[in-house]
Amino acid sequence: MILPDMGGTTVGTALSAVLGLLLIAGCDCNQKYKYEIKEFQVPLDHFSFLINATFNIRYLYNDSFVDKSNARTPIFFYTGNEGDIELFAQNTGFLWEQAERQRALVIFAEHRYYGKSLPFGSSTFNTSLPEHLAYFTVEQTLEDYAMLITFLTNDRQMPVVAFGGSYGGMLAAWFRMKYPHLVTGALAASAPILQFSGITDCDIFYRIVTSVFQNAYNTNCTANIAKSWKLFETLGASEAGKKQISDAFHLCNALKTDEDLKKFLDYVEEVYSNLAMVNYPYNSSFLAPLPAYPVRQVCYYLRELQTTDADLLHAMSSALAVYTNYTQSAKCLDISVNSNADDSGWNIQSCNQMVMPICSNSSETMFRTSSWNFKDYAEKCYKNYRLTPKPYDIILRYGGRNLEATTNIIFSNGLLDPWSGGGVLQSPNDKVFVIILPEGAHHLDLRHSDPADPPSVRDAREKEAAIIARWIQDF
Amino acid sequence: MILPDMGGTTVGTALSAVLGLLLIAGCDCNQKYKYEIKEFQVPLDHFSFLINATFNIRYLYNDSFVDKSNARTPIFFYTGNEGDIELFAQNTGFLWEQAERQRALVIFAEHRYYGKSLPFGSSTFNTSLPEHLAYFTVEQTLEDYAMLITFLTNDRQMPVVAFGGSYGGMLAAWFRMKYPHLVTGALAASAPILQFSGITDCDIFYRIVTSVFQNAYNTNCTANIAKSWKLFETLGASEAGKKQISDAFHLCNALKTDEDLKKFLDYVEEVYSNLAMVNYPYNSSFLAPLPAYPVRQVCYYLRELQTTDADLLHAMSSALAVYTNYTQSAKCLDISVNSNADDSGWNIQSCNQMVMPICSNSSETMFRTSSWNFKDYAEKCYKNYRLTPKPYDIILRYGGRNLEATTNIIFSNGLLDPWSGGGVLQSPNDKVFVIILPEGAHHLDLRHSDPADPPSVRDAREKEAAIIARWIQDF
Repeated sequence: MILPDMGGTTVGTALSAVLGLLLIAGCDCNQKYKYEIKEFQVPLDHFSFLINATFNIRYLYNDSFVDKSNARTPIFFYTGNEGDIELFAQNTGFLWEQAERQRALVIFAEHRYYGKSLPFGSSTFNTSLPEHLAYFTVEQTLEDYAMLITFLTNDRQMPVVAFGGSYGGMLAAWFRMKYPHLVTGALAASAPILQFSGITDCDIFYRIVTSVFQNAYNTNCTANIAKSWKLFETLGASEAGKKQISDAFHLCNALKTDEDLKKFLDYVEEVYSNLAMVNYPYNSSFLAPLPAYPVRQVCYYLRELQTTDADLLHAMSSALAVYTNYTQSAKCLDISVNSNADDSGWNIQSCNQMVMPICSNSSETMFRTSSWNFKDYAEKCYKNYRLTPKPYDIILRYGGRNLEATTNIIFSNGLLDPWSGGGVLQSPNDKVFVIILPEGAHHLDLRHSDPADPPSVRDAREKEAAIIARWIQDF
Repeated sequence: MILPDMGGTTVGTALSAVLGLLLIAGCDCNQKYKYEIKEFQVPLDHFSFLINATFNIRYLYNDSFVDKSNARTPIFFYTGNEGDIELFAQNTGFLWEQAERQRALVIFAEHRYYGKSLPFGSSTFNTSLPEHLAYFTVEQTLEDYAMLITFLTNDRQMPVVAFGGSYGGMLAAWFRMKYPHLVTGALAASAPILQFSGITDCDIFYRIVTSVFQNAYNTNCTANIAKSWKLFETLGASEAGKKQISDAFHLCNALKTDEDLKKFLDYVEEVYSNLAMVNYPYNSSFLAPLPAYPVRQVCYYLRELQTTDADLLHAMSSALAVYTNYTQSAKCLDISVNSNADDSGWNIQSCNQMVMPICSNSSETMFRTSSWNFKDYAEKCYKNYRLTPKPYDIILRYGGRNLEATTNIIFSNGLLDPWSGGGVLQSPNDKVFVIILPEGAHHLDLRHSDPADPPSVRDAREKEAAIIARWIQDF
């Protein structure tokens, strides 16, 4: 899940380029899980009769677990989210483990406009052709998946279970809501389907991040971070101070302008959010190569309340290096990694339908105060993409908190995950399962089993496996 | 419900222009039910970010029953179908009666592209502008209704019950399936949601019509009709014969060409279908001014097995006049009443998504044999409207027979209604109610209560009322 890109404005917060980082950091590139890569033709526009154009989305296919004598083979279908589908295949070990157990066909479907599923090839994101972005919506994507499942089942009765984490989890949940005839059930891990205007407070995200940092080592951690903003701004006001920051953090490009300083601050803020999300109990490389419980590591460097500017600057630099240079292979820190093709995707979705308000208050969090200003947000969307956001689209279609009629969805949320604030934490009925992982970060339960997993994650996976097994049995 | 217009081809059947008739025959024009007419702005295209154009749909509004002190006032929402919404308001007495009982707000929403809800005004159906037809889909229509309900409830908790008959009943059912957060339940009367390719035999419609005629008076009725096709064709082969037919049926425009003859035969065939649909137990004027149980009246004139051509011709003429000139006010019979703007609507929908295969077999029915040929059908659609039909769209989205996850829908079907063949006659679970009216014609239960109603219709309405009351209570 990537937060909306607000870079360059004073509204909201600037957690841009997470996807950029994510693609650079890459997958567990030992290719733990194997698959064929296939393509499937879909209409560009499922919902009007204006054009008949089509394009291909990619999907990953593995039938090695399938019992060919079983006419009702389950399909485990990952509803791909904002990135190259191979990354999610490598970071969703739970699906593979369960597929082996259930002898399921494994499918990871790539979301249109990501990875290599680009409807207009290399000109897909050409901002002088905004009409290319018109078909980049949740509904078109779900229809792609519906058609792909219809094609795969080919009139056979096969139970399909949707899996997804983060935005992919939102898609899995919405897919079950809208196409229950195609999807028996869905595991929606860390899926903040309530993080929309008017139904969840915009400050919840940063409050949870703060709480994660507060509890990771000791409370000096957040006190130091809270203090650091003022220090950065004071230093940043002078040329010498800018150089001091640049040197301390080994920036590849020294800060020169106030705009540079702002980018640096936004970058740092984003790092904290990412750290909270991937605060996994073992070494991982989902958003960046990281040690186990990286927030704890960061806070270890901030365990003393720093009183001098020099000490604080030094401590911050050591702390952030946990995220920015854990492998110690980077010669310098490049804070402008939001320039590759793929992160265009989420920035656009944030501007059309996925308008998820985020704000923060310095008196209650370790972050700077920033408000949510929809008007400015919408203006920026129009300026960048000629897109007018529809902030109520998702609630209109998927119901916001009105989930009474929903069935066969597991909503799992780790309480260490800042996105849990917009997650479903109470079940609307006895056919929707809410699983809370007190020690869980962002969709930790979807990842492969690991000896370092805390008990609550193992419990959650067992419960999820049992529910999925029942869906398949009852099909 | 209007059958697909196949006029001019030899495939399928030619039940065109029902809507034309319907608009001419008009409503119970004493305006039994009162309302304000309002307008509501909707996006032309809900599903892409290509255009920001909007237009207004109409809706009828009556709050005279509302208990203003009730914060949870029910809304009874008619999901308008293929025609001017005022017609449906006047022919859906059950909704009004129940609204009074439940003190509900009454809304009848006009379907886009019908009545006065034309997105491009007078050029909406201009066939040289096929792009005007692009947004004429079920999904866009349901979104219009979703937005209207969101506007009407204005963040208040109000139970909404959708009502609809025929295609409007299909919409009511699909609306509940896709927007359960907005609609507590739906009464889908005579809604043939299974009348699609591959899930229902295409000959069911005419088999039911035949059965209705067979049981109305005596079996000579269908024998005479079955014989009449051959007679019409034999006579129609000569000029003198064409004149004989024209005279017998008092045609406004005498048959001259073979094409004229074909139109006449198609017209007659359509009359039988309409008669079966509106075979109501009292005088009515839904599709045409008609006596009570009009099929019985028609078959009264065909009660003797006619042995000579002249006798058969005479009997047929008397029989058909029950439908074509019950008021005896027509000077002649005009069989080309499919030329006004509104019936364009259904012909287009039949060509985009609402592809409902119909065929017939003369050995099993009183009709001529006609096959269902999708290829020819699609070619005609392209020729007429530049539209490529998507015959599997509806099944992909609404699930065909896979209704297990559906809740809070009443499917009611009269067994005298030819559309019941494509209706839901078995409940998939205990939250979907199937109500069968053995003596019911096309959505008879939706009409106003009448002393002539057969007991099964009164029973059905009582059951429906109780279920609706429970939905409101449980809300």
